[in-house]
Amino acid sequence: MKAKIKPLPEITWDELQQLTLDDKARCFNRSDRPLHILVAQQFDRPLLQELGDMATRIRQVAKSKQGMDFLGNLLSHKTAMLYFTQPSTRTFLSFHSACQILGMRTVEVRDTSTSSEMKGETQEDSIRTFSSFSDVIIMRSAIGGLAEKMAWMLSHTERPVPIVNAGSGKDQHPTQALLDIYTLQRSFEKRGGIDRKTVVFVGDLARGRTVRSLAYLLTNYERVKQVFIAPPALQIGKDILDHLKASGSEYELASDFEKVIPEADAIYMTRIQDEWDDKTGDSGKVDISKYSFAAEHLKLLQPHAVIMHPLPRRKEIAVEVDHDPRAVYWRQVRNGMWIRVALLAHIFDCSDSIRDYHGS
Amino acid sequence: MKAKIKPLPEITWDELQQLTLDDKARCFNRSDRPLHILVAQQFDRPLLQELGDMATRIRQVAKSKQGMDFLGNLLSHKTAMLYFTQPSTRTFLSFHSACQILGMRTVEVRDTSTSSEMKGETQEDSIRTFSSFSDVIIMRSAIGGLAEKMAWMLSHTERPVPIVNAGSGKDQHPTQALLDIYTLQRSFEKRGGIDRKTVVFVGDLARGRTVRSLAYLLTNYERVKQVFIAPPALQIGKDILDHLKASGSEYELASDFEKVIPEADAIYMTRIQDEWDDKTGDSGKVDISKYSFAAEHLKLLQPHAVIMHPLPRRKEIAVEVDHDPRAVYWRQVRNGMWIRVALLAHIFDCSDSIRDYHGS
Amino acid sequence: MKAKIKPLPEITWDELQQLTLDDKARCFNRSDRPLHILVAQQFDRPLLQELGDMATRIRQVAKSKQGMDFLGNLLSHKTAMLYFTQPSTRTFLSFHSACQILGMRTVEVRDTSTSSEMKGETQEDSIRTFSSFSDVIIMRSAIGGLAEKMAWMLSHTERPVPIVNAGSGKDQHPTQALLDIYTLQRSFEKRGGIDRKTVVFVGDLARGRTVRSLAYLLTNYERVKQVFIAPPALQIGKDILDHLKASGSEYELASDFEKVIPEADAIYMTRIQDEWDDKTGDSGKVDISKYSFAAEHLKLLQPHAVIMHPLPRRKEIAVEVDHDPRAVYWRQVRNGMWIRVALLAHIFDCSDSIRDYHGS
Repeated sequence: MKAKIKPLPEITWDELQQLTLDDKARCFNRSDRPLHILVAQQFDRPLLQELGDMATRIRQVAKSKQGMDFLGNLLSHKTAMLYFTQPSTRTFLSFHSACQILGMRTVEVRDTSTSSEMKGETQEDSIRTFSSFSDVIIMRSAIGGLAEKMAWMLSHTERPVPIVNAGSGKDQHPTQALLDIYTLQRSFEKRGGIDRKTVVFVGDLARGRTVRSLAYLLTNYERVKQVFIAPPALQIGKDILDHLKASGSEYELASDFEKVIPEADAIYMTRIQDEWDDKTGDSGKVDISKYSFAAEHLKLLQPHAVIMHPLPRRKEIAVEVDHDPRAVYWRQVRNGMWIRVALLAHIFDCSDSIRDYHGS
Repeated sequence: MKAKIKPLPEITWDELQQLTLDDKARCFNRSDRPLHILVAQQFDRPLLQELGDMATRIRQVAKSKQGMDFLGNLLSHKTAMLYFTQPSTRTFLSFHSACQILGMRTVEVRDTSTSSEMKGETQEDSIRTFSSFSDVIIMRSAIGGLAEKMAWMLSHTERPVPIVNAGSGKDQHPTQALLDIYTLQRSFEKRGGIDRKTVVFVGDLARGRTVRSLAYLLTNYERVKQVFIAPPALQIGKDILDHLKASGSEYELASDFEKVIPEADAIYMTRIQDEWDDKTGDSGKVDISKYSFAAEHLKLLQPHAVIMHPLPRRKEIAVEVDHDPRAVYWRQVRNGMWIRVALLAHIFDCSDSIRDYHGS
Repeated sequence: MKAKIKPLPEITWDELQQLTLDDKARCFNRSDRPLHILVAQQFDRPLLQELGDMATRIRQVAKSKQGMDFLGNLLSHKTAMLYFTQPSTRTFLSFHSACQILGMRTVEVRDTSTSSEMKGETQEDSIRTFSSFSDVIIMRSAIGGLAEKMAWMLSHTERPVPIVNAGSGKDQHPTQALLDIYTLQRSFEKRGGIDRKTVVFVGDLARGRTVRSLAYLLTNYERVKQVFIAPPALQIGKDILDHLKASGSEYELASDFEKVIPEADAIYMTRIQDEWDDKTGDSGKVDISKYSFAAEHLKLLQPHAVIMHPLPRRKEIAVEVDHDPRAVYWRQVRNGMWIRVALLAHIFDCSDSIRDYHGS
């Protein structure tokens, strides 16, 4: 039996920090609104299915101007604050577009040098001020745990607006994992879904929070096999492997990429994230070519398999691969936008209206 | 009898500069549109009442989606330029939200390094260009008097759009004073309004333009007593005291904060504004603790009294005080947004439509 | 007979680069959508007339709130990306306003230091990502030919959104030329249009892409005489003169500005663009006063003539000239906005709806 978890306004900050990710997820998911989206572990299989179905539904509704105008009226009375103090054009644009599709007004804070933080204000006071002008705060920060801390803090105020974590530090980027699952759902729609597939992760698996979250979420599906291909120094973390073991998932650590390609249903390429390198340089000496998808690898790949990448890429995937129909990384970008629309609709409780919409 | 004042397009810049603040206020308030909002002195008691009532009305209308959609259609054909070359996230967000609530399109100029000023354009030409794309310019600048100068300049062009001063230099920040009055109106709604209250100002009273404007506006009310508590070097200016004297208002300069707390109806805390310090440093040696509101001060405070702060704060108010219902500084933030909506509705003449609205 | 030109998706990048500007224009204008706007040469006389008429029509419709609301609904389902990596507040605001008038949602990329380009992404990948979130990309860049290259690249993807060149490097700025033609159309509306007029260009004619494009477009009109007044080092390029010769247009190179003023129908002043100077400095030694319009020149100017300037100006035109009704450079700014609305309506095929609109 699972331990009873206190809801956010009752738990102390220290108690919250001592919870496992799974227990944190249960804490944040408590039916008490607002629904903060802070860790990938909040998405269980039914919710992943529901959000994916909703994203596909929204995509259909959005095909006509009438449908777009319908969507654009749903949250026209709400304002989203995009608090992006860590550079990320891609995630910013994706959320910004998602907000606009639902008609939300948006306001941005991107550079704290123009903010009151300069005048000695605490981050808590800044965020509380921002919450005064918005109905949701979508937060991207280089500081690990910031989104969590602010959600906890706001839960004790008169205006507890939901926080959506759009990437915090090295640890969590839950909506990226969500869009990856949605891409897999769509890719295997006619092949029995994600169950029983082999997913191969390649590259910087130590620091790619995307990979870590996705590996975790894949344990929601049956008999998925995960293969991790990385230079030893950048191999996937032990905590993830422990979780895979505990959940009875099959996995393999390997180093010969070409050998693994033929058995993959999905290959998830990643960039070496040298912006996290310390001064001695963890990744400078890595021979990147061993962890790259070259044009000649296409012929090793199964006809139904897909090649994914969270982007931006450097040279991990040859540009020639882009034209192959199995390259779905550009579709991932659009999927990310649609699944974020679905997530916002879920947070603001307007999924039913969308389901009931009958347009021309 | 008051002197006759020429309207903006007829007065010369030199003549305008020689007017008193009261006469400037009369010049800017002339019924000739556009109505520029440049100095706090433009708000007399009837206008303060009207704007406060309108803000409260708008707040009610905004409670429903239908009401928000009504408001959001009122100025959907207008564009507001937010010209914020001095950092101020808080005031920016407040005005931005206010514009969005009325459906105004917004466009921002925040960094003049990306502007034509780099190419040697005069500020007059820049502002005139910006006026081509907007129906109102909301202007925040480190340069004292800039908003005034630009309002005067635009009044001589074919496109004299209104200017709203969102803070210029050390001198004026009229909408901050407006929101403070609105907060006092609401706080004393059931206690006879602002008349006969004791307002205590604490901290950097020399350089806080907020305090200066509010002290001035409080002379619109009957028998308000003002107490100024500050280190000698940062005490309120003689010009303000002269105005209080001239208007027959009661005031007191004091240094013992604790002693004054029990008689206060409102305590207005402020931050030491050391960004205005010259190199020798005016405020470095101030013992800030003597001008701070600590948790233990709460028990000295009358039950109906309120604690205000224009924010951002540093350590002038202990975080523990936030949870006391008499701490209204977070409400001030929301009040600021609503009173700015009311002000824009006033400038664009749509207050009547809002008053007449009957929504569900 | 003109050579057959391949459409964008079939031509190679090398083939495209070898075309003349006229042939490029034919390539980009091919009826295959999307319609990219990349070079001024795409505007022939019928299209210039159509866009000018549409701008004037839109200006009329926009006079009422009902009309603005009609326009604001036309493209409410579309998103415009404003990719402005080269500083240009004026052009940015003009396009931004134009998009908003048609109800387009807008999203901005202005500083690539916050973008994935920092993480080693190619510009092609960045733009392709941006295209995922938008229906048109309005692109301003210091890199010559970038807009062309990106249009060509996108034409090979599943999401070939139109590109509008808002200024690339030293070479092209087609919508600036468009607004200049529109200003001339309006200025000579009651004097037989642009045909048979004398247009005098003054200042930095070598590096002003505006002048180069406008000189080119004026060959669409009958018996226009062009006079170029510039210091020898900054005189108009030989390629333009060759084009004028080939098209049988009359032109003159001159150095005595005052002598030419009385015969001008339009005088087009320009700024010395020293931001393009190399280190030795091409323009430092130019006596700018010889290429300036002073107050005393007004009496030399014909009563119906107009003074234009693409702005920003430095000292090429005395401020006193602003008040003369023949000074139309501030009107150019507004014209630029309206003609851009017309252009976007043309790209998105909603000109007919606007023509058919019957509002009150």
